Amino acid sequence: MYRSHSCGELKASHINTEVTLAGWVQKSRNKGFMVWVDLRDRYGITQLIFDEERTPKEMMEKAKSLGREFVIQVSGTVIERESKNSKMATGAIEVLVSKLEILNEAVTPPFTIEDETDGGEDIRMKYRYLDIRRNPVKDSLIFRHKVAMEVRKYLSDQEFIEVETPYLIKSTPEGARDFVVPSRMNEGQFYALPQSPQTFKQLLMVGGMDKYFQIVKCFRDEDLRADRQPEFTQIDCEMAFVQQEDILNIFEGLTRHLLKEVNGVEVDKFPRMLFDDAMRLYGNDKPDIRFGMEFGELNEVTQHKDFGVFNAAELVIGIAVPGGNKYTRKEIDNLIKWVKRPQVGALGMIYARVNEDGSFKSSVDKFYDQEDLAKWAEVTGAKPGDLVCVLSGDTNKVRAQMSALRMELAERLGLRDPKVFAPLWVIDFPLLELDEETGHYHAMHHPFTSPKPGQLELLDTDPGAVKANAYDLVLNGNEIGGGSIRIHDKKIQATMLKHLGFSEEEAKAQFGFLMDAFEYGAPPHGGLAFGLDRLVAILGGQETIRDFIAFPKNNSGRDVMIDAPAFIDDEQLTELSLKLNIQEKE
Amino acid sequence: MYRSHSCGELKASHINTEVTLAGWVQKSRNKGFMVWVDLRDRYGITQLIFDEERTPKEMMEKAKSLGREFVIQVSGTVIERESKNSKMATGAIEVLVSKLEILNEAVTPPFTIEDETDGGEDIRMKYRYLDIRRNPVKDSLIFRHKVAMEVRKYLSDQEFIEVETPYLIKSTPEGARDFVVPSRMNEGQFYALPQSPQTFKQLLMVGGMDKYFQIVKCFRDEDLRADRQPEFTQIDCEMAFVQQEDILNIFEGLTRHLLKEVNGVEVDKFPRMLFDDAMRLYGNDKPDIRFGMEFGELNEVTQHKDFGVFNAAELVIGIAVPGGNKYTRKEIDNLIKWVKRPQVGALGMIYARVNEDGSFKSSVDKFYDQEDLAKWAEVTGAKPGDLVCVLSGDTNKVRAQMSALRMELAERLGLRDPKVFAPLWVIDFPLLELDEETGHYHAMHHPFTSPKPGQLELLDTDPGAVKANAYDLVLNGNEIGGGSIRIHDKKIQATMLKHLGFSEEEAKAQFGFLMDAFEYGAPPHGGLAFGLDRLVAILGGQETIRDFIAFPKNNSGRDVMIDAPAFIDDEQLTELSLKLNIQEKE
Repeated sequence: MYRSHSCGELKASHINTEVTLAGWVQKSRNKGFMVWVDLRDRYGITQLIFDEERTPKEMMEKAKSLGREFVIQVSGTVIERESKNSKMATGAIEVLVSKLEILNEAVTPPFTIEDETDGGEDIRMKYRYLDIRRNPVKDSLIFRHKVAMEVRKYLSDQEFIEVETPYLIKSTPEGARDFVVPSRMNEGQFYALPQSPQTFKQLLMVGGMDKYFQIVKCFRDEDLRADRQPEFTQIDCEMAFVQQEDILNIFEGLTRHLLKEVNGVEVDKFPRMLFDDAMRLYGNDKPDIRFGMEFGELNEVTQHKDFGVFNAAELVIGIAVPGGNKYTRKEIDNLIKWVKRPQVGALGMIYARVNEDGSFKSSVDKFYDQEDLAKWAEVTGAKPGDLVCVLSGDTNKVRAQMSALRMELAERLGLRDPKVFAPLWVIDFPLLELDEETGHYHAMHHPFTSPKPGQLELLDTDPGAVKANAYDLVLNGNEIGGGSIRIHDKKIQATMLKHLGFSEEEAKAQFGFLMDAFEYGAPPHGGLAFGLDRLVAILGGQETIRDFIAFPKNNSGRDVMIDAPAFIDDEQLTELSLKLNIQEKE
Repeated sequence: MYRSHSCGELKASHINTEVTLAGWVQKSRNKGFMVWVDLRDRYGITQLIFDEERTPKEMMEKAKSLGREFVIQVSGTVIERESKNSKMATGAIEVLVSKLEILNEAVTPPFTIEDETDGGEDIRMKYRYLDIRRNPVKDSLIFRHKVAMEVRKYLSDQEFIEVETPYLIKSTPEGARDFVVPSRMNEGQFYALPQSPQTFKQLLMVGGMDKYFQIVKCFRDEDLRADRQPEFTQIDCEMAFVQQEDILNIFEGLTRHLLKEVNGVEVDKFPRMLFDDAMRLYGNDKPDIRFGMEFGELNEVTQHKDFGVFNAAELVIGIAVPGGNKYTRKEIDNLIKWVKRPQVGALGMIYARVNEDGSFKSSVDKFYDQEDLAKWAEVTGAKPGDLVCVLSGDTNKVRAQMSALRMELAERLGLRDPKVFAPLWVIDFPLLELDEETGHYHAMHHPFTSPKPGQLELLDTDPGAVKANAYDLVLNGNEIGGGSIRIHDKKIQATMLKHLGFSEEEAKAQFGFLMDAFEYGAPPHGGLAFGLDRLVAILGGQETIRDFIAFPKNNSGRDVMIDAPAFIDDEQLTELSLKLNIQEKE
């Protein structure tokens, strides 16, 4: 062992102890007659001291030669520090060095290894191993480990069994694009990497495994949006002989356990909201309920006048911005600009100030009188001092726009406190979703999701109206988990696949093994999967996942540190019975 | 919830309780006026009873209609059983059913779902979800979960952090063949699936993460030998600021913890054996030391006579088979046939019986007298009643042959008791291994393994003699883990790669990121990886891993249940800039 103690543990009680430490030189101060070195390891920083009086000359010179990030081993005596640093765990002491060994030298790192670094995203990704030395990244990875351990402990205590499902499986064109893996031993054939272990966990239920979980990597070959990774980690769970209520209870328990153990926060029973209500009140299916600003639907109180914009709209929505009446005209103009950005896409925004005396001043006073505006305030819940912002248009679009505005305003108003946790179940999702481009319905969750009892018949007449036994767990405006009760009846599964446009042959080729399995006594079952990367980030008080992943890829799916993907040898290709087929791009 | 209790928990203390159970019909006995059903779930079996007197007629008929593996839900009263079954956990009671619901019917399964099944390997693989219902497989998977949990608990308590490393990495021609993954977004380029997270865990050490572990899937595209899987699971570990001794201690601690928690076995400090001694005494680097039968080298006591076979041999080895003198001539002839099988490859076997009176009778009495044979007995440790078996030939070959014979004899003699655990460290492995075919040396462990201090110079003069800081953990004749102290100096790493035949460009292209990382202050580090599949199997008292893997592949790398790998659409290929290149086989 190269050390007797870590750099984070020496306290006043260690004074006069002989210790050996090893770590990296965080920085050093050379006053000529004295040299201080901050020695860093995973656990903290300890100050080392060398001085002319007590340190041999040769060692003094060696100490002066130490550069940033040199790896050294020192032995010495713990002594009391003259000027104590109460902000540092080891601030009461320093180590007077009697032996110094340089274990490895270091060239100057391309960015400073400090909490606030001067390194940009790209350079930090290329030298990720140096970035990991920084507390924000290191602590995020340790935090992730802690969360994963608590997940495993909780579920294991509840008799869940972690079962490893295979990574080399079969490609299914349904859903997102698969990553595929050519098989050398089975010429011309490919495995696929799992987008999720969905069918395997269902087979485990058929196999009687009853309570399954797995923390598992999943893969999706999508064009990457910001903050998406081609490989991501799921907490994948499934239970047999349960109804929706049982699943909600178990995983609410898990989430509450994590909030308590990891964040020290006790949370009451999670509220539940119908999908339809979430869309109506918040304009999206993962509302952030840490703050209000619920939507008020204003059609009735706006469409009785001559204002054509509102009259032509399918939906008119307003929200009350708390304290928004203090915004200057310029600030409001900027807000209007903000909603008109292509990313949001509104054509404009109407507003009404609610003055402290209860009177109103709107941007459409020409059309609406004080009585009208009072109704706007009533519907949106606006109080004196607030600002009512109103958008209008097609239902889906205007809801999305207002949702974006609501989140932006909350951000600006500091209402999205990362230390406050507001979990929420959103339930009764639609079974199907209309693809506006193709005009076809596809499964909103996945093709194994069970429709609500008695709604199967609606599939023929009004497919969009069918609700599913499907639910999402939302935390602070992020979907952290989602799942459903599955179909466990072969006939219903066949009907579903037919409605999703699978021919009988396609259904058999892709899901035949699952349908076959349902013949041999499939129990009622259902489950849920959490996105671990995001869950960890949110529990850690962050909205971006990158620092919680040790070696993330960039938005082109590249690992810039190891420079992957890369070209492979022709020989390797030939062995795999493959040829490149690169076409000139137009 | 479909049940108030599991099928494994009802005892006499539950008598008169109303319960609801759900599960599978294991079997039913219909006596006309009475029907008994064994209801099974993951936790056990509970006997249900229906009888003419107490069960309504309609339910009686329904009960009679239940087939094997039907999924049912029942409510009823726990009653005392007339003829108790003390072998069953629930053998004191039965449930008098008042409500019966068939949740799902089942067709007759292709094999019986019992501990001893009539299903062959192939059919059980195809219907793996049914195989998992059988106790031997189900219990193995639960056992695996338990082992993995204990590994995580132990390492986490020792401040190890589980860090997830990427699955989509870069192909390196070194070592076994990679599985590759074409990248759609980076045309013509490929990711590779990791054979192990080796370089990433070393980068984590450079990153200061200090104590890392991960239970992680790894991939090797090898022609599969029996009991190998293309995807397998490793407990991958690495530590910084440690010497070999520290690593052995930590992971000996882990193994001892597992033996205690999982098997209830306390094991003393693990013995350590030099690689050279293992080869000399047992003929292989993973000796089973649950029993003796160590090799005796007989050159000195055999090569002084006119027996040409021995005189021409590089090495003559004997072992003493305890009690082997009782073998008949026919049994010994069969043993000779066994060693002459092509899988073993010996040309013959000489033997000497040690009679109870201490006299000898050998197959080469023409050449050797009693005095000679007494020396054979002395060197091999043979006692009256034993049999000395002798093989001769080239050192490497004869050691391998004798090792095979030793294991076979131990098996026959019942010396390989799966309930006895004999762990062993084998240390001081050679750094390099000569490839007999190419005449080149390659890394025995991997190219990042550190040579023993002071032996670097030998690389030029006698590469085969260089020993490494490399070690294996052996349990009952199986390598369950292996590792090494790594090189952490860029120059030494470059020297090693040169000796392994990498040009400077190849070294840079493949391991440049690691060598770069070593410039920025790499700490001394080392680690170890356990093969989880095998570790679990051996702790579970088995030698084959298949039942400890939920969904294994067959020897052609196929998942016969889901029928993967499979052909993919041309469209998918085109998107990946690939074409099939299937050549006529000669």
